[in-house]
Amino acid sequence: MELEPDHHPRGAPMASMGIEVVQEIDLRAVREQVDAVLEDFLVGKGRAAAGRRHPPEVVETLLDFLAAGGKRIRALLCVVGWHAAGGGEDTASVVRVAASLELFVAFALIHDDIMDDSVSRRGHPAVHRALRERLGPSPRAERLGAGGALLIGNLALIWAQELLHTAQLDPERRRVVHGLYDAMLEEVMYGQYLDVMGTGPGDDVEAALRIVRYKTATATVERPLQLGAAVAGADTATLDLCTTLGLPLGEAFQIRDDLLDVFGSADGACAPGLGDLREGKRTVLLALGLQAATPPQRRRLHDLVGRADLDEDGGAEVRALLEATAARERTEHMIASRYEQVLRVLDTAGLPPAASGALRGLAVTATRYTA
Amino acid sequence: MELEPDHHPRGAPMASMGIEVVQEIDLRAVREQVDAVLEDFLVGKGRAAAGRRHPPEVVETLLDFLAAGGKRIRALLCVVGWHAAGGGEDTASVVRVAASLELFVAFALIHDDIMDDSVSRRGHPAVHRALRERLGPSPRAERLGAGGALLIGNLALIWAQELLHTAQLDPERRRVVHGLYDAMLEEVMYGQYLDVMGTGPGDDVEAALRIVRYKTATATVERPLQLGAAVAGADTATLDLCTTLGLPLGEAFQIRDDLLDVFGSADGACAPGLGDLREGKRTVLLALGLQAATPPQRRRLHDLVGRADLDEDGGAEVRALLEATAARERTEHMIASRYEQVLRVLDTAGLPPAASGALRGLAVTATRYTA
Repeated sequence: MELEPDHHPRGAPMASMGIEVVQEIDLRAVREQVDAVLEDFLVGKGRAAAGRRHPPEVVETLLDFLAAGGKRIRALLCVVGWHAAGGGEDTASVVRVAASLELFVAFALIHDDIMDDSVSRRGHPAVHRALRERLGPSPRAERLGAGGALLIGNLALIWAQELLHTAQLDPERRRVVHGLYDAMLEEVMYGQYLDVMGTGPGDDVEAALRIVRYKTATATVERPLQLGAAVAGADTATLDLCTTLGLPLGEAFQIRDDLLDVFGSADGACAPGLGDLREGKRTVLLALGLQAATPPQRRRLHDLVGRADLDEDGGAEVRALLEATAARERTEHMIASRYEQVLRVLDTAGLPPAASGALRGLAVTATRYTA
Repeated sequence: MELEPDHHPRGAPMASMGIEVVQEIDLRAVREQVDAVLEDFLVGKGRAAAGRRHPPEVVETLLDFLAAGGKRIRALLCVVGWHAAGGGEDTASVVRVAASLELFVAFALIHDDIMDDSVSRRGHPAVHRALRERLGPSPRAERLGAGGALLIGNLALIWAQELLHTAQLDPERRRVVHGLYDAMLEEVMYGQYLDVMGTGPGDDVEAALRIVRYKTATATVERPLQLGAAVAGADTATLDLCTTLGLPLGEAFQIRDDLLDVFGSADGACAPGLGDLREGKRTVLLALGLQAATPPQRRRLHDLVGRADLDEDGGAEVRALLEATAARERTEHMIASRYEQVLRVLDTAGLPPAASGALRGLAVTATRYTA
């Protein structure tokens, strides 16, 4: 993830820039509140586990996973959604729901890494790999490491729901929040399923976009915004506005993430990689490339993409093909058009200035792409 | 699972036996109600999936899994717990919570089968194996099949919680029900974790009992009874009674299950098997055997148990060792003493006769062991 919500992005109407003096949402403080809830909750779980002689590494693994990084973008968007719907004085409930989203992310990533057999996550060994190491050299270590990580992932989901169950919402808000949360979980599972069980890369841009939408876009922006808004008692129009803003922003974010994975970023913060190409991930970028390719180009792309042993030369060849077919340019255009769509909606949405400003800022960091 | 709650077990004080005329709980009708809720819910999920062009096999897999069998013991115990706490006229909420427990069981078993790489479940290929077949001959089929099954299992858990969220409970009962449910999920995950990441079979009977307790016993009897009771608004004394009854009954059930896996049953309904022995499952039976073994017997047990290629002769040798060390006899004694404990508690608990009768019946079927 490349979002940098802690920084004031260029172009955002922040008070410090003198363009427009608005009440800002202190995203850094929000992040600290969310992390404090997560730490309190998990430290409590660790104490309870010790009392029952359960293995301490389950909680330790989750604490380490959260401490290793992550931009808490979903938690921040949840709180922004709450402000968008009028917010209020007492932030305890919305911060708890926001914290729940971050445990949900831990669950999804830990399971994703098992399914992809990813080597690392957030600069550390992926959880199933770390457990495998812990088990030492044994023919069963691979299967048992994956099993242990599966269970730690499950506990992250179960505890995410426990945070939600204990967020002290009144019955009507609770009903709406649970409905949105359950829908989000279902969408992400279907998105991951489409990704895992799908037919591999093809030229169907719409199919690639559906995976983006279900696997990532709704759960990254739309649902977190809606959940925060629902905690503030938002009406249907506000929840719909969260969708109108959240879908293009979430898609732009994920399409850009896929572009960065292949091409890296100009500032060097993100190096060009081989991860998605080796995995044969069904990205919009690749679908556009296959769509516009000549028959020989297409054969070459199919030859190279999805090879677990793809080397740097092969990666460079794929990148050249994605440039030659204008897939890269068209992908950048898709990101830009979604960014502009978000700004247009914000211009007329009449949101409270603090929420509108935060969303503009997040839209810039989520979509800025210069390579 | 060997429970046969649909039949009137010998020894149960059922009205039809003329020992005591009590109002019976019609367990067959309860099962039909639970299955109707599950089918309605999942068929609705299937319709929604079709509308969004999601793959239909996710819902189909879960419907097939439920249709293939399972005694719905947790659902029945949930409704018995509700009767034990006084029940009431409207069964809709308790049946929905009971149905939720069966989706939770589907989740736990689908994931368990991935972790053990089990071949079959309920007479059909295990879900990850079925998906692997579906993918056809491909080097990635094994990993992708496991990934697909992982996600279908996750959806079973997510939908179990959705059934709970929509069970129309008043705020106080909802709070208690969610607390019990979240505790149950956590216990089962820790139990599975101990099982997966543990050190393999040893002579520590207490450690084997802890796995039984967390992985199975509480989630099979104690928590379902408590959940049903909580739906009926039970007080703390009644919830505690569910524990006093549920723990020994759940342990007896699982210890017997482990005994049946190795030795089979006299009536031939359950054949002696090699599953647990090949897997090296840490059962109470095996711990008792290792504890009482002479050094040569112990070496032989360690040699044989946990070998994936253990053959019938090896299995027969292990069985003979478990007889010679009196492990089998002591295991049977542990089951019987738990059964008697349950009856003693029921004698003085003062439960409504229908609930008491159903529990006596379930205690007999859950613990009857004659080989």
